[in-house]
Amino acid sequence: MDATKKYEILRMNEKERNIEEDIVVVEYPLTIMLEGREIITLFCTPKSLRELTIGFLYSEGYITSMKDLDKVTIDEENGLAHVFLADKAKKKIKSQSTGMNPKTGSSKGTDFNHLKEELYSKRITNRLEIDEQRLMDLMRTFSQSSDLFSSTGGVHSCGLCDYQGIIFFEDDIGRHNAYDKIFGRALEQGIDLGDKFILTSGRISSEMLIKVIKRQIPMVVSKAAPMSLAVDMAKELNITLVGFVRGEKMNIYTNIPR
Amino acid sequence: MDATKKYEILRMNEKERNIEEDIVVVEYPLTIMLEGREIITLFCTPKSLRELTIGFLYSEGYITSMKDLDKVTIDEENGLAHVFLADKAKKKIKSQSTGMNPKTGSSKGTDFNHLKEELYSKRITNRLEIDEQRLMDLMRTFSQSSDLFSSTGGVHSCGLCDYQGIIFFEDDIGRHNAYDKIFGRALEQGIDLGDKFILTSGRISSEMLIKVIKRQIPMVVSKAAPMSLAVDMAKELNITLVGFVRGEKMNIYTNIPR
Repeated sequence: MDATKKYEILRMNEKERNIEEDIVVVEYPLTIMLEGREIITLFCTPKSLRELTIGFLYSEGYITSMKDLDKVTIDEENGLAHVFLADKAKKKIKSQSTGMNPKTGSSKGTDFNHLKEELYSKRITNRLEIDEQRLMDLMRTFSQSSDLFSSTGGVHSCGLCDYQGIIFFEDDIGRHNAYDKIFGRALEQGIDLGDKFILTSGRISSEMLIKVIKRQIPMVVSKAAPMSLAVDMAKELNITLVGFVRGEKMNIYTNIPR
Repeated sequence: MDATKKYEILRMNEKERNIEEDIVVVEYPLTIMLEGREIITLFCTPKSLRELTIGFLYSEGYITSMKDLDKVTIDEENGLAHVFLADKAKKKIKSQSTGMNPKTGSSKGTDFNHLKEELYSKRITNRLEIDEQRLMDLMRTFSQSSDLFSSTGGVHSCGLCDYQGIIFFEDDIGRHNAYDKIFGRALEQGIDLGDKFILTSGRISSEMLIKVIKRQIPMVVSKAAPMSLAVDMAKELNITLVGFVRGEKMNIYTNIPR
C-alpha cells in the first residue's frame, strides 16, 4: 500500500492560485484483533504492518516472546491485523484481562504510576560506551535513509543500530509506531538488543524510554531534544541519552563520560 | 510549575567539550482520577492543567457539559487531577462503564470503527468562509505567540480564533493536549464554537479532526501538513482544511472556493 496519496487542492502564493495535485502522507488505521477481539486502532504509515503489530503487542505486554504467537495475518485492504495466541499465552492474557475497551491512538502504555516501579527494577547493567565519531557518522547515514516520502513532512524515523551500522530502519507518521516496527522486526528475527542502540529523528519522551527499557536497550541517540521525564528516567535506568546529534555536534544527557 | 528544567550536560562541537547547563522542556505526568478511580496519565506541559483535564474529559465522552462536573481539583505537586461528577453524570458513566484499565499517553480516542459512524452524523452545516488575507495575518501573530520555551524545540501550539483575532492560545509537548486545553477553556467559559476556527502549528491527523468535529468547529488552519485520513474525514464532515499557511502561501484541501 502506498505511503502517500494524491489530492486535488488549491495552492496559493503571492502571485497565483492554482488547482493542483498535492501529495499527502497516508494515515492508515490498523485495528488489531486479538483472538477476535478489537484491542486498538493504530494510525500509522502502511508499511511493515506485521512488525508493527508484533512490536505493539510486546510493548503492551500481550506477548513476551514469539513463542506466545500462534498466527498473525494482516488484512491490508480492511485495515485489520488478526492475531492468534499460543495456548499458554492465551491463558496468561485471560488471567490479566480486565475487560479493557478498544481504543484508538498510537500512544499507549499501561498505568504509569504502577509501571514506574516495575520499570525501575529493569535498570541497565551493561552500559554501552559512547563512540562519538561513529555516532555522528551513523546519524549522517541515518538522516539520508528516509525515503522521498519524508519530503511530505512530519514522518518520524527510527533505526536499530550497533557500531557496525544500521540494522533496521523504519519510517512512520507516529513515533511510537516507528519504534514498535523496529522492535517487532527484532523480535521476529530473535536479535539480542542488549548491545544495540536506537537512532531516532524525533524527540525522546518518557514513553519512548519505556519502550526501550522493556527491551533492555542501553542507549538512545536522537537528532532532536529529550524531554525532562525521559532524562530523569534515563538516569534512574542507567540508559545513555544523547541528543541534538547534528554534524559534529551532540549533547550527552546521561552517563556523561568524565 | 515551570515548563522547562535545567540539567548539567556534556555539550560537544568541532572545537570543544564542555559540561554546561542545558534547558530541557518539562514532560509532566498528570494522572486524572475520576471519582477516585485512575483513568489516564497524560504527559503534558504543566500549564492550564484544569483546562486540560476538562477538555480531555469532554473529548473522551466522560462529560458533555460543565453541568456534568461537580468539582475539579488540581494537585500540582503530586501530578493529580481529582474530578468529581454531578450525580446525573455519575449515573451516565456508570451505565457506560466497561471496567476500562487506566492508561498512559496523550493520544486517546474511542473505538475507531464504531466512532466513525457516530461522527459522520455530526456533519458541519454552517460552513465558514475562507478570508485568506486574514488567515495569513493571524498565522503570523500566532507564530509569534509561543513563548520562549518553544525555543527548546518540539512544542505544539494551538489557538482558538475568529476573524477578530486569537481568543485562546496554548502550548503543549503533546498536540492532543494543546487542543484539549483550548477546548477545556472554551467549555468552562461557555463559548460557542460553531463560528470559530483552530490555528495550529502541527500536522493535522484524524485524531485532531475527531476532537474538532465533537465541538462542531467548521475550520482547521495549520502551518503544517494534513494527513490523508484527516483530509478524507474533513471532506465527509464538511470541515474546511487549510494547510502550510506560511507567509503569503497556503494550501486549501477541502471546501475549495471555486
